Amino acid sequence: MKKAGVAILGLGVVGGGTYQILTEKREYFKKTQGVDLTVENVLEKNVDRAFSLGIDRSVIASSIEEVCSNPNVDIVVEVIGGIEPAKTFVTKALKSGKTVVTSNKELFAKHWTELEAEAKKMHAGLFFEASCVGGVPIIRALQEGMQANKILSIKGIINGTTNYILTKMAYEGSSYEEALKEAQRLGYAEFNPTADVEGFDATYKLSILSSLAFNKKICIENVYREGITGIDKEDIAYGKEMGYTLKLLGIGKDTENGVEVRVHPTFIKNSDPLASVNDSFNAVHLVGDAVGEIMLYGRGAGALPTGSAIVSDVIFAAKHDRYFYANFENNKKGNKETKFVSDFTSKYYIRLSVADKAGVLAKISGVFAKSGLSINEVRQVAGFEGEAQIIIVTHLCGEGQVKKTLEKLKALPEVFAIKGTIRMED
Amino acid sequence: MKKAGVAILGLGVVGGGTYQILTEKREYFKKTQGVDLTVENVLEKNVDRAFSLGIDRSVIASSIEEVCSNPNVDIVVEVIGGIEPAKTFVTKALKSGKTVVTSNKELFAKHWTELEAEAKKMHAGLFFEASCVGGVPIIRALQEGMQANKILSIKGIINGTTNYILTKMAYEGSSYEEALKEAQRLGYAEFNPTADVEGFDATYKLSILSSLAFNKKICIENVYREGITGIDKEDIAYGKEMGYTLKLLGIGKDTENGVEVRVHPTFIKNSDPLASVNDSFNAVHLVGDAVGEIMLYGRGAGALPTGSAIVSDVIFAAKHDRYFYANFENNKKGNKETKFVSDFTSKYYIRLSVADKAGVLAKISGVFAKSGLSINEVRQVAGFEGEAQIIIVTHLCGEGQVKKTLEKLKALPEVFAIKGTIRMED
Repeated sequence: MKKAGVAILGLGVVGGGTYQILTEKREYFKKTQGVDLTVENVLEKNVDRAFSLGIDRSVIASSIEEVCSNPNVDIVVEVIGGIEPAKTFVTKALKSGKTVVTSNKELFAKHWTELEAEAKKMHAGLFFEASCVGGVPIIRALQEGMQANKILSIKGIINGTTNYILTKMAYEGSSYEEALKEAQRLGYAEFNPTADVEGFDATYKLSILSSLAFNKKICIENVYREGITGIDKEDIAYGKEMGYTLKLLGIGKDTENGVEVRVHPTFIKNSDPLASVNDSFNAVHLVGDAVGEIMLYGRGAGALPTGSAIVSDVIFAAKHDRYFYANFENNKKGNKETKFVSDFTSKYYIRLSVADKAGVLAKISGVFAKSGLSINEVRQVAGFEGEAQIIIVTHLCGEGQVKKTLEKLKALPEVFAIKGTIRMED
Repeated sequence: MKKAGVAILGLGVVGGGTYQILTEKREYFKKTQGVDLTVENVLEKNVDRAFSLGIDRSVIASSIEEVCSNPNVDIVVEVIGGIEPAKTFVTKALKSGKTVVTSNKELFAKHWTELEAEAKKMHAGLFFEASCVGGVPIIRALQEGMQANKILSIKGIINGTTNYILTKMAYEGSSYEEALKEAQRLGYAEFNPTADVEGFDATYKLSILSSLAFNKKICIENVYREGITGIDKEDIAYGKEMGYTLKLLGIGKDTENGVEVRVHPTFIKNSDPLASVNDSFNAVHLVGDAVGEIMLYGRGAGALPTGSAIVSDVIFAAKHDRYFYANFENNKKGNKETKFVSDFTSKYYIRLSVADKAGVLAKISGVFAKSGLSINEVRQVAGFEGEAQIIIVTHLCGEGQVKKTLEKLKALPEVFAIKGTIRMED
């Protein structure tokens, strides 16, 4: 039977889940996988946390050096999160020839290329299934299940916190602030929610997933990012009436004109499979040139779901000798070779607060017509005291074109405010 | 660069798709996967079909022996379908040490254990991603992406033909016969549709998927099977009104009482993620003890989607040296060790045609009460000329209990007919 010794760096939520799965299921894995996995070391400042998990003192390492020089450790699991000390620890582990399994999306999105170079030098494995979409084996699917395909597009709900908030706003009519508070109370959102609600977390994941999908390193700087803090519950309600659901999507497309990668609130049709992905669930929709449409759905976070991804990587690493290296086309020259589309086209939902008097709609339509921006649908909703709401859904148009049109609309005395501008995706 | 020579047995729809992907993408795979895949042999009686695909005469083998003795062939792709000659060909290929990749669900469901034994003798690989749910990497997910989990349940729409028919009946109000004809016209159903509409195809796939999921060989004889030929469009319409969607599901559960595996038409809630899987799309919903709920969705058939699964297996086989063997717990003693649940419990939708007169509902409710069968919801719909329709949704109850109750209902003079009995699943 194959044996592999594991070290766990960090015993937070995911580290605890990983430890639990590895220890409780040791016999199960021996039977079903033919591998004997033992936790040889943990590295955790908070020794009481280690004791509370039932970890023996002899297993607790005092430094990363101790872990790296332990000959019984084959696989190092990094679940500390953030850049430092995670980066130093992972680098040391790789340099000493250990295979690394990580859930650290920020580290991976920012330093993948350097880490892979270290791994390759020592023929070590570098696994990161847990970095994206929790326990859903999306990374393995891209690496080992869809290799026959050139992936044309990726479209995903890849942040559970914002999906929980948007679901609550849609189904209970909560405001953004109310929904955020509830998410914090339930532990779905951090005390400082910026990384989630401003789309940074989704940007890290989209960077990793689209790099794999398109076989080109997509840096986070290449990803257009817009969070959900500006979303008004009114827009979710109007969209619903018109047959649309609002989601924070990570979208990647590899087209003839270049690569397009963006994270922003997006209206999708209610019939879109992603529209019924609610609460803290995540899902990724892919289109491959051979396989067509594929969607993977599941829990994007949590001790056991993320632990599941970590342990699956550990088992894969223990069973196989050949590891996946991305070997990106543009590894050597960075991204300079990859063309990116920034003036991407989409349909737009635009809500205006306007003066409730004759001729306003005509004037507004005139501005759209002059900008060459074609209108698909218009709704006028009566407001209060001389104010009306006009909702316009455009046909496909460029980002720049929309910005210019919005400037012109703002300049009209009849337009009080631009209340909402939300991209739409088929 | 790793090189692998491929032989394709059978140039039907999937064989053609496989050949196309392998040849058109040779350079792409060299670049992205670091493997050079060449088609060294094809075995196809219809030589004109081979020529029409642009295959050179020198590549066309005249017998399986020629393929097996060709030292340039490493991987044999079997896409003939059915038991013979596929079984003989696959066995010969394995005996000569070739790795086999197959899309043949019937062969695999019926002869997996023997084929695996042959493969193990020669340390050859045996891959079957394409046997279930087309290009969706569900097998790889179970083998290499969810190993950390004990899978508790599997629930899937795993036959595209019946899903197309049921979707058409639900959305267009077609009868079963009309929908079947349309499916045949579009090539979604065979001239003889029995394998699909009677649930045999789904049974093969459920047998394979639940064997992998539960780590026990589940034979097709263990699977309860009921097709869709008896489905009345009225029941689909009534279910819709009550918030349910009808799907042909493959259901597997691994419980303390034993394993439960069944294929039958099933009402699921409209909010169930499987309810919006329409037309010829497939989806599999899994629950793992660590990862929780997961769903994979995509095209279950077709030249390129199934070709995608085949070629992904070919690439996996070419890159990795360690192959997956199921090593089922009960391999040696067959299924005798596994306990199966046949009197499984579910909720039931029951539609009765009854006499439209006072006291009938009371009498019927009485029969349910005496049988200890608890009613969740009742609807009475006016019929014609002294007839009424009563729809009853039960709470959870056993199969045997329902059968007995139906017998008692049939015996009532007020009950003209039992029009529909459909299981429901949460």
